[in-house]
Amino acid sequence: MPTYSCITLARPVEGVPSQEDFNVETRTVPTISDGQVLVRNFIGSVDPGMRSILSGVDSYAQVLKPGSIISGATIGVVEDSHHPKFAIGDVVSGGFGWTELGVSDGRGLLKLTDRRVPYSCHIGVLGVPGLTAFFGLERIAQLKDNETLLVTSAAGTVGATAGQLAKLRGCHVTGIAGSDDKCSWLKNVCGFDEVINYKTVGDLDMAIAEACSGGIDVLFDNVGNTMIDRVIPRMKVGGRIVVSGQVADYNKAPEDVPGIHNTSAFITHRLRMEGLVVYDDFRDFSRAKEEMIGHIMKGDLHYREHVTEGVANMPEAFISLFTGESFGRRLVQLGDIPEQRQ
Amino acid sequence: MPTYSCITLARPVEGVPSQEDFNVETRTVPTISDGQVLVRNFIGSVDPGMRSILSGVDSYAQVLKPGSIISGATIGVVEDSHHPKFAIGDVVSGGFGWTELGVSDGRGLLKLTDRRVPYSCHIGVLGVPGLTAFFGLERIAQLKDNETLLVTSAAGTVGATAGQLAKLRGCHVTGIAGSDDKCSWLKNVCGFDEVINYKTVGDLDMAIAEACSGGIDVLFDNVGNTMIDRVIPRMKVGGRIVVSGQVADYNKAPEDVPGIHNTSAFITHRLRMEGLVVYDDFRDFSRAKEEMIGHIMKGDLHYREHVTEGVANMPEAFISLFTGESFGRRLVQLGDIPEQRQ
Repeated sequence: MPTYSCITLARPVEGVPSQEDFNVETRTVPTISDGQVLVRNFIGSVDPGMRSILSGVDSYAQVLKPGSIISGATIGVVEDSHHPKFAIGDVVSGGFGWTELGVSDGRGLLKLTDRRVPYSCHIGVLGVPGLTAFFGLERIAQLKDNETLLVTSAAGTVGATAGQLAKLRGCHVTGIAGSDDKCSWLKNVCGFDEVINYKTVGDLDMAIAEACSGGIDVLFDNVGNTMIDRVIPRMKVGGRIVVSGQVADYNKAPEDVPGIHNTSAFITHRLRMEGLVVYDDFRDFSRAKEEMIGHIMKGDLHYREHVTEGVANMPEAFISLFTGESFGRRLVQLGDIPEQRQ
Repeated sequence: MPTYSCITLARPVEGVPSQEDFNVETRTVPTISDGQVLVRNFIGSVDPGMRSILSGVDSYAQVLKPGSIISGATIGVVEDSHHPKFAIGDVVSGGFGWTELGVSDGRGLLKLTDRRVPYSCHIGVLGVPGLTAFFGLERIAQLKDNETLLVTSAAGTVGATAGQLAKLRGCHVTGIAGSDDKCSWLKNVCGFDEVINYKTVGDLDMAIAEACSGGIDVLFDNVGNTMIDRVIPRMKVGGRIVVSGQVADYNKAPEDVPGIHNTSAFITHRLRMEGLVVYDDFRDFSRAKEEMIGHIMKGDLHYREHVTEGVANMPEAFISLFTGESFGRRLVQLGDIPEQRQ
C-alpha cells in the first residue's frame, strides 16, 4: 500500500524546540469519500507563530495534542477528487501542516489559478506573513501616508513586507534585524530608510532614537515585550503598536515572559496596542493579494525564500527560526513543483 | 492690599505625596488688564491623574516646576472682567488649579448657565472624570449593547460613571472597589450586577472569574499594570482594555512599575489596549454632558461627592486619594457657592 510521511508532535514543547519534540511518521495513503479531496503537497512552511500551540501552557491558544500533525500552510496538487469544485491536477493552497499528503472537504482550500507570480509566493509574501503585514498596517495601525514606522525582525517576510508597503505610502521606515546581510538587503533592495543590526550596534536605544529622531507613529513588532517596552518612550502622541509576533517570547514559560512597564505613556501619549490574527481579514484577502501582486510585478515589493528539502527536515527548519539564522521565508520543498505556464 | 491663598509645589514628589511636597502661599490679588478675567473659585478638585506631573521623572508627561500652582479643575465666580464674553457674577468652570483666585484671558473658561444640576457636577460627573468615563466607553472601548464590562477603582467618579453608562446600554457590569460601603453603593444605588471588595475577597482572580464567568469584553481600568495583567486571561476574543488611570502605579519610580506579561493574548485573543486624555474629545463635550444631564435627571446616573473646606486642605485631600480612604469625587470648597435659580 502506498504511504506518505508527516511530522507529528512527540510531546508538549518546553523552551526552545528540539528534534526530540517531533516524530516522523509514515502513514498509509487514505481512500477518499464523497466530497473529499486528496492533495499531494509540494511546498510546506514553518512559522514561528506556530510555537504557541505546541506547549500546552498557554491558556488562551488552542493547543496541539501529541500525535497530531504540526499545523502549517501548504501548496499542493490535487491527486484525487470526489469534490465538484476541485479536479485532478488543480494546484491548491491549504493548511495541511507538516505532511506530504492531506485530505480535505474543500474548506480552506484555495485554487491557485494566477500565473503571474511563482506558487511559493502564495505561502509567503501573498500568504499569512504578507497578509499579516498588509492588514497589520491597514486595519490595526491604520497607517497614514508619510508616517514614521519602526519594524522589528524586519528581514522576516512579515517585517520586510510591512516596511515595503509603508515605503509605498511615503513613510519613513526603519528596520531592526540581526545581521549585516539582512540589513544590507533591507536597505539596498527593499528601500528601507534606516537599518539597525541589533547584534552589533551597541546601544540599541540610542540607535533607535537616532534613526527615528522625530518619534515613531507605528511600531510593527515581531519580537516581543522587551522590544515593545524599549520603543514606547520613542513613540509619538497617537502612536500605534502592532503586536504582530513575539519570537523572543514564544519559547518562554509564562512566568519568564518579560513585562511591559512603560505603560504611563498609554495615557500621556494616547498609545494604542493591538494584536491580530490575519484570518479575521479573510474576506479581504483577494483585494490585498491583488494589490501586492501589482507591487511585485512592478518591482516594488521584494521577498526572499530560504528553501530546504524533505518533510523530515521541517523540525530543523522550524528550530532555526528561533536561532536567528534564517534569512527569508522558510519553506520546505516536499515534492516536484508543477510547471507554471503564463 | 487684598490677598488670596494658593498651593504650590515645594519640590518634585517622590513616592506617595506628603504635606512637605506642598507650600501654602499668600499672594496679592492682581489687577487685570484688557481682555482678562478675574475669577474667585468656590470649588476646586484634586485628581489622582495629576500625580504624574509632580515628579519630574516621567519622560512623557509635562512636568510641573517647583513654585508653580498645582493643576486642577475649578468652578468660580467672575469678580472682575475686562473681557467682552464674561461679566461680573458669571459662574465659570476653568482650570485655575489649587488656588482661591485666578486670572485668565478667557481660554479654557466655560460659562455655566445650566441650572438643572448643581455646579459641583461640572467638576465631577460632568467634568473630566465623567467625560473620561463617557469617551473611554464610546471612543476607546467602542462599547456595544449587552457586552460584559469590568471596572476597577469602581467607586471613583470615573469608574462609577463608566459602570452606570454601560448599564444603560444593557451591559453586564462588575465593579472592583476597596470597601463594603463602596461595594454596597455600587450594587444598590448604581445598579452594578456584581461587586468585589478586593481587600476582603481572598482570591481576587477567582472572584473575577466567577463574576464574569462568560469572559470580559471591556476592562475599564483605573488601577494599573498588575490589575490589567491579572484580568487579561479573562478577556474575550476582541476584548478592549481602556487605560483610564493608574492609581496603583502613579507613585512608583519608573523602575518599580510592575509589568504586563500576559501579552500573548494580544495575538490569540485580538486584544486592544488604549489610553486616553479626555481633552482630545473637547468638541464632543456638550453632547456628552447633555446626555449625562438627561441620565442624572431621570435618576439613572448617580454620583457621590466628598467635600472638605479650605484651600490649605487640598494637599491632604490629594494624599487621601492614594490611601483608598476617599469615597466619592474629592472636592474642596474654597468659598461661598452662589445660589442656583431654576
